[in-house]
Amino acid sequence: MNMDEMTENLKKNLRALHQYTATPGEGTTRLPFTKEARAAANHIRSMMEEVGLEVREDEAGNIIGLLKGADPSLPALVVGSHFDTVNNGGDFDGLAGVMTGIEIARMLKRETLKRNFIVLGFCDEEGMRFGTGYFGSKSILGQVTQEELRHYKDKDDVSVYEAMKGYGLVPENLPRAAWDLKTIKAFVEMHIEQGPVLYQSGDELGLVECIVGIQRYIVTVRGRSDHAGTTPMDMRIDAVEAATRVISRIPDWAREKGEGTVATTGYIKVLPGGMNIVAEEVQFSVDVRSRNKASIDDIVAKIRDGLDESCKRNGATYTMDNKLTITPVNLSRDMLSRLEKFCKNRGYSYRRMISGAGHDALAIGQVLETVMVFVPSRDGRSHCPVEWTEYGDISKAVAVIYDLIMEMQ
Amino acid sequence: MNMDEMTENLKKNLRALHQYTATPGEGTTRLPFTKEARAAANHIRSMMEEVGLEVREDEAGNIIGLLKGADPSLPALVVGSHFDTVNNGGDFDGLAGVMTGIEIARMLKRETLKRNFIVLGFCDEEGMRFGTGYFGSKSILGQVTQEELRHYKDKDDVSVYEAMKGYGLVPENLPRAAWDLKTIKAFVEMHIEQGPVLYQSGDELGLVECIVGIQRYIVTVRGRSDHAGTTPMDMRIDAVEAATRVISRIPDWAREKGEGTVATTGYIKVLPGGMNIVAEEVQFSVDVRSRNKASIDDIVAKIRDGLDESCKRNGATYTMDNKLTITPVNLSRDMLSRLEKFCKNRGYSYRRMISGAGHDALAIGQVLETVMVFVPSRDGRSHCPVEWTEYGDISKAVAVIYDLIMEMQ
Repeated sequence: MNMDEMTENLKKNLRALHQYTATPGEGTTRLPFTKEARAAANHIRSMMEEVGLEVREDEAGNIIGLLKGADPSLPALVVGSHFDTVNNGGDFDGLAGVMTGIEIARMLKRETLKRNFIVLGFCDEEGMRFGTGYFGSKSILGQVTQEELRHYKDKDDVSVYEAMKGYGLVPENLPRAAWDLKTIKAFVEMHIEQGPVLYQSGDELGLVECIVGIQRYIVTVRGRSDHAGTTPMDMRIDAVEAATRVISRIPDWAREKGEGTVATTGYIKVLPGGMNIVAEEVQFSVDVRSRNKASIDDIVAKIRDGLDESCKRNGATYTMDNKLTITPVNLSRDMLSRLEKFCKNRGYSYRRMISGAGHDALAIGQVLETVMVFVPSRDGRSHCPVEWTEYGDISKAVAVIYDLIMEMQ
Repeated sequence: MNMDEMTENLKKNLRALHQYTATPGEGTTRLPFTKEARAAANHIRSMMEEVGLEVREDEAGNIIGLLKGADPSLPALVVGSHFDTVNNGGDFDGLAGVMTGIEIARMLKRETLKRNFIVLGFCDEEGMRFGTGYFGSKSILGQVTQEELRHYKDKDDVSVYEAMKGYGLVPENLPRAAWDLKTIKAFVEMHIEQGPVLYQSGDELGLVECIVGIQRYIVTVRGRSDHAGTTPMDMRIDAVEAATRVISRIPDWAREKGEGTVATTGYIKVLPGGMNIVAEEVQFSVDVRSRNKASIDDIVAKIRDGLDESCKRNGATYTMDNKLTITPVNLSRDMLSRLEKFCKNRGYSYRRMISGAGHDALAIGQVLETVMVFVPSRDGRSHCPVEWTEYGDISKAVAVIYDLIMEMQ
């Protein structure tokens, strides 16, 4: 195993994909079913073909590279992650895991494998465009309905359905993207940590035991628009007041739970949005995560109670639209033990840890034997242009996952 | 005086201007220096010309119609209001006051006036596009600087300077829009009330004694963007948390002051705005109004103290950018007495009242003899598509202001 060559390959390939951004000079913005996504997908296909994989794009827009084993009837081993990004994100979140799969395939090509080996590039994990998440991985699990394709829309009111058509897909064929789960033995995802733990501890790799559960909502508070000067305070139905009375308390509700529980409002939209107009409507997001499902449920209940109370004060109404519910998932103990062994063999420092971020492995880990390997994120930063991971650190993850695939094949 | 004919004219002219909106079917949106504003300004010019005025557009974009008196050296009488709107506003706010001036001019044309009579259509009162306010009226007072033209920008980063050039104006010539105040005797503004007082009391006209003072700010809270799942609560610099802890308390600070004091946050913008990203920056507006300047100052001080405290908690920083400061203004006692007399003569019910909304009369009333007349707003609604005032109610205001002009000419 030539680690330097692998690091050079990773560097070259990750940098090559940097060009496919809607925001040149301001980080990588590669939302699903856009022209940037199309160009990136085509480039990833050619990278997979270059290492000798049979490549296809599935009905969801995922890129699938196959290395046939001697006995293709055996359940396959899958390594992958996603190639979409958030708005103004970085070059590593997601894509590093796809490139890891390609580097492993490059080495496996020289071996004789019993099982099929598959590299996966999921088209939409972040949920940035449609306010959802895990579209690619849920599609191969058969968990995305035709109704959802039409229900979820982007900020320009384009539905997933319409966006898929514009991308060259046939949305009605989405069910064909679903895999027969009996044909898959295990899924491995390499991902940057996106948090500060490994970077601060100095450990080279993170072996992920558990991925936190997530509940995500869009809350819409409806008041009444009035002139901000002529409407007395006691005659207003101010949506901003009703909403911010709750938003401002959510972080403390998460702190009370401990165990790394987090809750975030990262999106607020006020309509009509004039400085001299009492707000008619406020939309805001809530994203609650914990390894403990009861903590998530309790925070969501507190948000509902808070909204009941603040809306009752001034006559506003509200709805809470659930965008995502994922229960915490424990990853494969067997694969964790094997990875631990390979880390020791290769002399890599590592730590077992929890993932506070959702990943494709969170969706897939609910139904398939799954494990994740983390590499350090500089300063714990991600989802921003300064997101950075040393290419050599990714090579170490490639090495131990290669060891794992060779042992399990 | 043919009241029915006047009402028909007002109805025809106000409806004719309805077409100049950027949001057809969703209320009137006529922001300054847009193509809708240009088309409306041209139409208003032709209406003024039709009643026999000499019309010009000044260097600020205001439309000025002159009816020469027998002795043009005497200080002139001015009636007017603005022709811009908020986003998705109505057809009466502002424009009804311009049309009032035109109807008065139509009648005055048949008389022999001593003084010049001027009808004014201000191009930008709402401040909706650039986050300012009273651009038109401040320009004729010589209160707008070249620096401000370049400093204030719209949401697409277009400065007032650039917008003016695109509209066909020469921004460098703005100082020429300033009037010699000695040439003006008094300013009268007819405006819809935009509040519920007249509509609920059933009074036909409101004679405005005082316009509240206003302070308006854009607050920018700067935190740090981080992944919403991987960043522990105690390691975040969450701009949403720091901002909403203050926004949520502002309404109560206004209620404590009484005397009709109001405070409003009608605009909030969160960057980058992703559901799974801790917010890096929050911008929000604060608009505080009171007839008591000390109450405004005290609420603004509480906002600063609140931001100091909430930013200190998590390490965020903030700036407060003053967008508008206007001290409360008392209107002309002399003109109020005369208007009261004319209301009685004509048998119109009226009430003396306070304006909670700012108006061009607020800027002009600081330096010139000024009075305002209000007409009822149905349900007190304004700044929205359902904004409505009976055309016949406007005719009553036209009548008493005509009486006032005739007596003062």
